[in-house]
Amino acid sequence: MTATQAERLDALEARLRHVEDQLAITQLVASYGPLVDAGDADGVAALWAEDGSYDVEGWQMNSREDVRAMVRSEGHQHLIAGGCTHFLGPASVRVDGDDAVAVCESVLVRHRDGGYSVRRAAANHFGLRREADGWRIAHRTTRALDGAAEARSLLS
Amino acid sequence: MTATQAERLDALEARLRHVEDQLAITQLVASYGPLVDAGDADGVAALWAEDGSYDVEGWQMNSREDVRAMVRSEGHQHLIAGGCTHFLGPASVRVDGDDAVAVCESVLVRHRDGGYSVRRAAANHFGLRREADGWRIAHRTTRALDGAAEARSLLS
Amino acid sequence: MTATQAERLDALEARLRHVEDQLAITQLVASYGPLVDAGDADGVAALWAEDGSYDVEGWQMNSREDVRAMVRSEGHQHLIAGGCTHFLGPASVRVDGDDAVAVCESVLVRHRDGGYSVRRAAANHFGLRREADGWRIAHRTTRALDGAAEARSLLS
Repeated sequence: MTATQAERLDALEARLRHVEDQLAITQLVASYGPLVDAGDADGVAALWAEDGSYDVEGWQMNSREDVRAMVRSEGHQHLIAGGCTHFLGPASVRVDGDDAVAVCESVLVRHRDGGYSVRRAAANHFGLRREADGWRIAHRTTRALDGAAEARSLLS
Repeated sequence: MTATQAERLDALEARLRHVEDQLAITQLVASYGPLVDAGDADGVAALWAEDGSYDVEGWQMNSREDVRAMVRSEGHQHLIAGGCTHFLGPASVRVDGDDAVAVCESVLVRHRDGGYSVRRAAANHFGLRREADGWRIAHRTTRALDGAAEARSLLS
Repeated sequence: MTATQAERLDALEARLRHVEDQLAITQLVASYGPLVDAGDADGVAALWAEDGSYDVEGWQMNSREDVRAMVRSEGHQHLIAGGCTHFLGPASVRVDGDDAVAVCESVLVRHRDGGYSVRRAAANHFGLRREADGWRIAHRTTRALDGAAEARSLLS
């Protein structure tokens, strides 16, 4: 094998790893809505690092365990028992070595009185970290898109 | 070429095939909404296996031909003539050899009386199969997220 | 290295390039909503080719500069200052050499009077071109899904 061919193998491995990282992260973000609306507390929690955080509109979670508790909370159980979708759009991802940032918008649609309505639109910013067994959310911030500058600043 | 380099080629091919499978399936699911809202009966039908099924809220389709007939039906034609989007979120995909499962949420937005409103939020579960010329839907189940436990169970 | 192994490298490079192209384009489309709702005029403009066009409901932009001016316009700034999401679904992409087509649906959700509502559902058709430093939008057409046949024809 010539040096050139070894170099081609090296380059392919590096490029493929980058593609796999991007896909893994878009898939992780795509799985959040279905899991949280299913009420799958362990499945949602497993998306976060053990010490990962989730800051959403005055609710500050500081660990995987906190996230699990949020899914099991009376508030969330009431929401999904009535019917809802935490509908996240496709994530825009930037990978930098073992860290990554993902951004997407979301809408919360609720079922009530036989109909459906949009209850919130939000900006979502994810900081992710590569761990031994894959990518995990290190911190997530979600803010309502109600005109506040802070929410807009999460999207850029 | 040393054994190690042959092994690297083998590994690259296997990893790339997995990436291609994931992408093909997310693309297949992403194409459903645009095709069905365009009224492209053949395009929609081609997403299904010849014997594929689609079970949606009391409408049971058992073949590609049944899916084509659904798109051509008076009900669906009326819906798209008034203006609507079958808006599916990004699919969460798990590939296992020649089979795969994809899950996503969706909202149906209709145009009426000069405005738009959400008419339904739903859970979607796809079973897919690798055929000679690519991935096809073997069975799809869609249920309204109106609080019923069955819909939630499709998402996990 | 045998011819067969050289051929495997060639095939891997071609397949990986196709995957990278698909991902780059889905990522580009996924970044539009967050950037435009952040009011990031330069970020949005950079998605277009220098001479790229954007035709949306009677607003015809014919350059990257026109797109930048749209984001900075009083109309758009008013929209995002009140709170909104230009929520685009996952793009369905077809790559053909240095050209590509991407299609997706979108909804515009606005915040007003303390609540949220869907103001528009639309069909989006992107023509893209590979430039020296990556994919850019050569032309984009967006039409409201209000029942008009033109919008539906963009989706197929």
